[in-house]
Amino acid sequence: MLVTLAQDAPESTRTSLLTHSMEQGLTARVLDDGAGGSVIGIGGTLKTDVGVLPGVTRVQTVHKPYMLASLDARTPSTVMVGDVPIGNGEPVIFAGPCSIESRENLIETARQAKAAGARILRGGAFKPRTSPYSFQGLGEEGLKHLAAAREATGMPVVTEVMEVDQVDLVASYADMLQIGTRNMANFSLLKRVGRAGKPVLLKRGFSATVDEWLMSAEYLMAHGTADVVLCERGIRTFDSTFRFNLDLNVIPGVKELTHLPVVVDPCHGTGRRSLVKPMSLAGIAAGADGLFIEVHPDPDNALSDGYQTITPRELATINRLTGAMLAALRDAEDEPVAAEITYVSVPEAADAMAVIA
Amino acid sequence: MLVTLAQDAPESTRTSLLTHSMEQGLTARVLDDGAGGSVIGIGGTLKTDVGVLPGVTRVQTVHKPYMLASLDARTPSTVMVGDVPIGNGEPVIFAGPCSIESRENLIETARQAKAAGARILRGGAFKPRTSPYSFQGLGEEGLKHLAAAREATGMPVVTEVMEVDQVDLVASYADMLQIGTRNMANFSLLKRVGRAGKPVLLKRGFSATVDEWLMSAEYLMAHGTADVVLCERGIRTFDSTFRFNLDLNVIPGVKELTHLPVVVDPCHGTGRRSLVKPMSLAGIAAGADGLFIEVHPDPDNALSDGYQTITPRELATINRLTGAMLAALRDAEDEPVAAEITYVSVPEAADAMAVIA
Amino acid sequence: MLVTLAQDAPESTRTSLLTHSMEQGLTARVLDDGAGGSVIGIGGTLKTDVGVLPGVTRVQTVHKPYMLASLDARTPSTVMVGDVPIGNGEPVIFAGPCSIESRENLIETARQAKAAGARILRGGAFKPRTSPYSFQGLGEEGLKHLAAAREATGMPVVTEVMEVDQVDLVASYADMLQIGTRNMANFSLLKRVGRAGKPVLLKRGFSATVDEWLMSAEYLMAHGTADVVLCERGIRTFDSTFRFNLDLNVIPGVKELTHLPVVVDPCHGTGRRSLVKPMSLAGIAAGADGLFIEVHPDPDNALSDGYQTITPRELATINRLTGAMLAALRDAEDEPVAAEITYVSVPEAADAMAVIA
Amino acid sequence: MLVTLAQDAPESTRTSLLTHSMEQGLTARVLDDGAGGSVIGIGGTLKTDVGVLPGVTRVQTVHKPYMLASLDARTPSTVMVGDVPIGNGEPVIFAGPCSIESRENLIETARQAKAAGARILRGGAFKPRTSPYSFQGLGEEGLKHLAAAREATGMPVVTEVMEVDQVDLVASYADMLQIGTRNMANFSLLKRVGRAGKPVLLKRGFSATVDEWLMSAEYLMAHGTADVVLCERGIRTFDSTFRFNLDLNVIPGVKELTHLPVVVDPCHGTGRRSLVKPMSLAGIAAGADGLFIEVHPDPDNALSDGYQTITPRELATINRLTGAMLAALRDAEDEPVAAEITYVSVPEAADAMAVIA
Repeated sequence: MLVTLAQDAPESTRTSLLTHSMEQGLTARVLDDGAGGSVIGIGGTLKTDVGVLPGVTRVQTVHKPYMLASLDARTPSTVMVGDVPIGNGEPVIFAGPCSIESRENLIETARQAKAAGARILRGGAFKPRTSPYSFQGLGEEGLKHLAAAREATGMPVVTEVMEVDQVDLVASYADMLQIGTRNMANFSLLKRVGRAGKPVLLKRGFSATVDEWLMSAEYLMAHGTADVVLCERGIRTFDSTFRFNLDLNVIPGVKELTHLPVVVDPCHGTGRRSLVKPMSLAGIAAGADGLFIEVHPDPDNALSDGYQTITPRELATINRLTGAMLAALRDAEDEPVAAEITYVSVPEAADAMAVIA
Repeated sequence: MLVTLAQDAPESTRTSLLTHSMEQGLTARVLDDGAGGSVIGIGGTLKTDVGVLPGVTRVQTVHKPYMLASLDARTPSTVMVGDVPIGNGEPVIFAGPCSIESRENLIETARQAKAAGARILRGGAFKPRTSPYSFQGLGEEGLKHLAAAREATGMPVVTEVMEVDQVDLVASYADMLQIGTRNMANFSLLKRVGRAGKPVLLKRGFSATVDEWLMSAEYLMAHGTADVVLCERGIRTFDSTFRFNLDLNVIPGVKELTHLPVVVDPCHGTGRRSLVKPMSLAGIAAGADGLFIEVHPDPDNALSDGYQTITPRELATINRLTGAMLAALRDAEDEPVAAEITYVSVPEAADAMAVIA
Repeated sequence: MLVTLAQDAPESTRTSLLTHSMEQGLTARVLDDGAGGSVIGIGGTLKTDVGVLPGVTRVQTVHKPYMLASLDARTPSTVMVGDVPIGNGEPVIFAGPCSIESRENLIETARQAKAAGARILRGGAFKPRTSPYSFQGLGEEGLKHLAAAREATGMPVVTEVMEVDQVDLVASYADMLQIGTRNMANFSLLKRVGRAGKPVLLKRGFSATVDEWLMSAEYLMAHGTADVVLCERGIRTFDSTFRFNLDLNVIPGVKELTHLPVVVDPCHGTGRRSLVKPMSLAGIAAGADGLFIEVHPDPDNALSDGYQTITPRELATINRLTGAMLAALRDAEDEPVAAEITYVSVPEAADAMAVIA
Repeated sequence: MLVTLAQDAPESTRTSLLTHSMEQGLTARVLDDGAGGSVIGIGGTLKTDVGVLPGVTRVQTVHKPYMLASLDARTPSTVMVGDVPIGNGEPVIFAGPCSIESRENLIETARQAKAAGARILRGGAFKPRTSPYSFQGLGEEGLKHLAAAREATGMPVVTEVMEVDQVDLVASYADMLQIGTRNMANFSLLKRVGRAGKPVLLKRGFSATVDEWLMSAEYLMAHGTADVVLCERGIRTFDSTFRFNLDLNVIPGVKELTHLPVVVDPCHGTGRRSLVKPMSLAGIAAGADGLFIEVHPDPDNALSDGYQTITPRELATINRLTGAMLAALRDAEDEPVAAEITYVSVPEAADAMAVIA
């Protein structure tokens, strides 16, 4: 159940709700409601009549199964990654190499990416690879390079964490933890990452339904973090023309279901360098809160994913184009619709035609 | 094989190629090559050495299996529907009701759609329905209403043809013939429609690969029409959150393979009215040559597909926004990239950092 | 609605129902109910109270949307193809070449297939091919070869019909008409084939849901034929290891929904010769009413589909193995379950353990 | 690379190969080759010419990417779970409840399952659940119940392990570790489980290709275990008629690629109790080495998955039927093919017809 408290609700009400939950063996999590007050998500239904407590403005027992992540809980939320807000209407570019290769290369990439418009640095230290014989990432050494690149550029950093035992280590270096597509339904990992006290980037499983994706966000939130950013990165379909099929329907679609921001990964979502620019524009036009992009100064010689990695120069073009596009859309959104296009029911059609013509 | 002829190639060369083809039992089709000359696609390899004929500038025996539809054959093509060009860089809105309901309703819808920015009228007279007990369309009566709406508005009209026996009838009313998603691999129909002498809108089968889609275009072209417009309308995946998943990867993707224009149907591609606007913007941002939209003055009371149909007023907003977006993208595309973002190989990184910082 | 009539219902009741249907603009079809009586499927709900008519034993207004095909209408049905029953508990092998190549080759293949256990001859005269430049079948000449092979072997023949205009021609030669996977949702063709007065083999569209498949069967039945055999032939999934994935869940699954027999095509369903035998056994074990198999005396030199075609010798092995398997299953099905394995609720568990031990 | 050693190869050869691998930074694993000798899989190519070492009978540098799991490495292998062999031609039934509920219930279920023909007990102590608010299993208490049920029945036990930190705990109770479908590509878990010294049941990811499945087996093998059993449990497709689609093509299909045994889970693979029996028969007919079945004395009151769980009585029927079926298939396989069905090339057809008739 979801219980909304007014801004001025007495502390005793909150305490009472949490105590009752604990006594009845139910989880309880407190979120801002986005309107000055707060909302408490309780993992079941309290037997107590909580509606009578002072400051309770709303009690919902019917809501989405992912109650904390849902729009039932609150208005659209903004997630802070370091000092960068995600979800406030200004799309944010995350950029960096697929795999961290060396300290120099990473710092260089980060500087160029920043100059090209990126605001958050991404890079893989622990890499999930389908073959046990492939390069599995630099590990902690890579995390240190990330910290150095943050130092050099001022950009917060996000990197993937693959197992429960690494969570504290990765959290000690990164500003945001990334759950990869293959771990979206690794519930043990979600629980542990939810408790780590860092914002989380949750990639959609490439065969996960929207509901499953949001239930995974709920795992993170039920175990502690309020700060989850969703990332669409392409789904697996019958057609292998592209490595994956970027599913942009979900951008406006999940915004009807959840208050969480959602960003787009046009690199994994297409598997082809030449499609990164048009699909970045498409993602932003569809309403995404950001882009998650693989950038490398020399993609052809990147250690991994070079075929879907772009250069900083290409990133700068994307940044310039998406900025211009958004500005134009905002201006045009404000213009009034021409008066003559009105709903006219059919009986009135004869007259209407005259008006329109 | 594809044989390209210079603009000033003698008629005898063309005649010779067609004659040889016929004698060797091979099909042959002549297309403009988009550069003043022409290209002849021959459904096999001539035994003759055609490279020596006067005016032959290129002979390709290695090309895509959909040779006439491929970029091997020519530069991007523009398809004329009535007096409306598709593929010339100015996206075109096709709009109209899913099913034609009455003369008055159709004319009214057409006038409003035109006022909202549509340039081609669409509407179904013959409707493919999964149940034999559902309304199957008005048939020829619907075609007459279409002609009346063209008369009233000046817009050319496109409508679906479902069987070989209807092709002549539909072609006698419509300016463009539509192949529906369920008939994309109805090869008998493709052959007959290819011979009808009208431009064709070819919807992608909802489970068709890109190659299959282009092979269906090739059927149309091998049997006579040079004027095919592709239409992405959503694919069937594992996720039924949306009725179909609009696959925008194919917009920039097919343009790397074919010279044919490609438009987007955001109504079938999402199955949800609220997603039509954002996915229209996304489609145009991805590079589509047009939008194919279900419009009805009163969607809640439309005979079919109302849940994915928008009003003329909403269409006007889409038209205004896509126009503003495109203008902004063009302006921004022309701006130079900031000088400091350059490819710098790693050995030079130390210096480069100084430059960028 | 479905109206069931007793065996001794007066003719006046049937006449009354059909007249009322016609007057109210509804389709009506009469089927045997599998229990001596008949059932009338009416494409809507009669306003008349038909329950009071003499001989009416049941009136169903709530039923599956594919009412004629559903188990709501009747008990499992048997379809006669020539003198061969499909659906009576004895699986039937349909066998023959993918494409008919020559009279001699077809007769030879048919004789060998018959010797190997086949009871119905299949073979393609009109071939749906994804490329317009591929061999499209022998056409009517192929139909004549089929008739000759029937003459030579006594086996009834089934062949695909691809377009409305061919239906009469194909029906004049074939004992059963086949709807191919790409035409499963070609509703114009289904209507016309439903009226042809021949039993129909309806292949599942490779991306069709079970409901869509049964709605296509309903199209055939609503337009006239009571004799439809379903054929599962593999679906298209994310995995291209095999050309298609044979979906055997549907064999027992559709039998919970429909009275129609269902057979399995292990050749298209796997796309690999070596899998035809094990998947034939699996199909029969799952409860299929027959197998639909591509056989050629020399698969490596077949004109099409050789990689998934087996020899008559391999067919004989399949026939022997499925026969032995079915006989064993029937014998074993009749044995009683050992007495000691009984449902025991947990409270009684302590005692039960003693019994079982 | 794969290096095969004869049975009598000197110990010095093996030592030399392992030493060279270590010096060149490559992994190396030793397997039986199934023919008395051994095979060493090296995760890369040694620079040394190893073919000249005494006892080396074969050096393969071209092999499948999953070299240890592939048929390139060895003949079909048999995996021992406790004293029960998997893969020796006698299919084995794994049975037990989805979730372990109580000591009494588990022991009771185990006894009945054993009486019904099961040879290995399965049951979930740690349960992956899509909702954070659902029952997540009894944890270690469940493992203790498993051990008690093994004590009571003598059956070895298999249970799922979900995270790296649980591996030692679960391995201290279980005879076999299960990797669930959602963890098939959890590479961190695979590495750790591979080192645990227990046989592993590897469920296929419901959207994993065959290659990805075998690469996950390779992870297990590259990190230490030689004893992996694959389990097909249904894939996710476009059709939600069934919860998942059991993909039986892979049963004979993977046996062409790997030496590992493969079993079938007809419960998850159909999501429907009524389909468990026919799809169990189909799985065995397709060549599966065993069945993995959810059994509960009272499925309607099971804590989870009751809709796809069968009773011990139903399991007894499946066991009896599969036994009878296999016996019949073996007898029939041995019969000779009738002499008259022979390959006859077309030129000889006229004569051949006479022979056959």
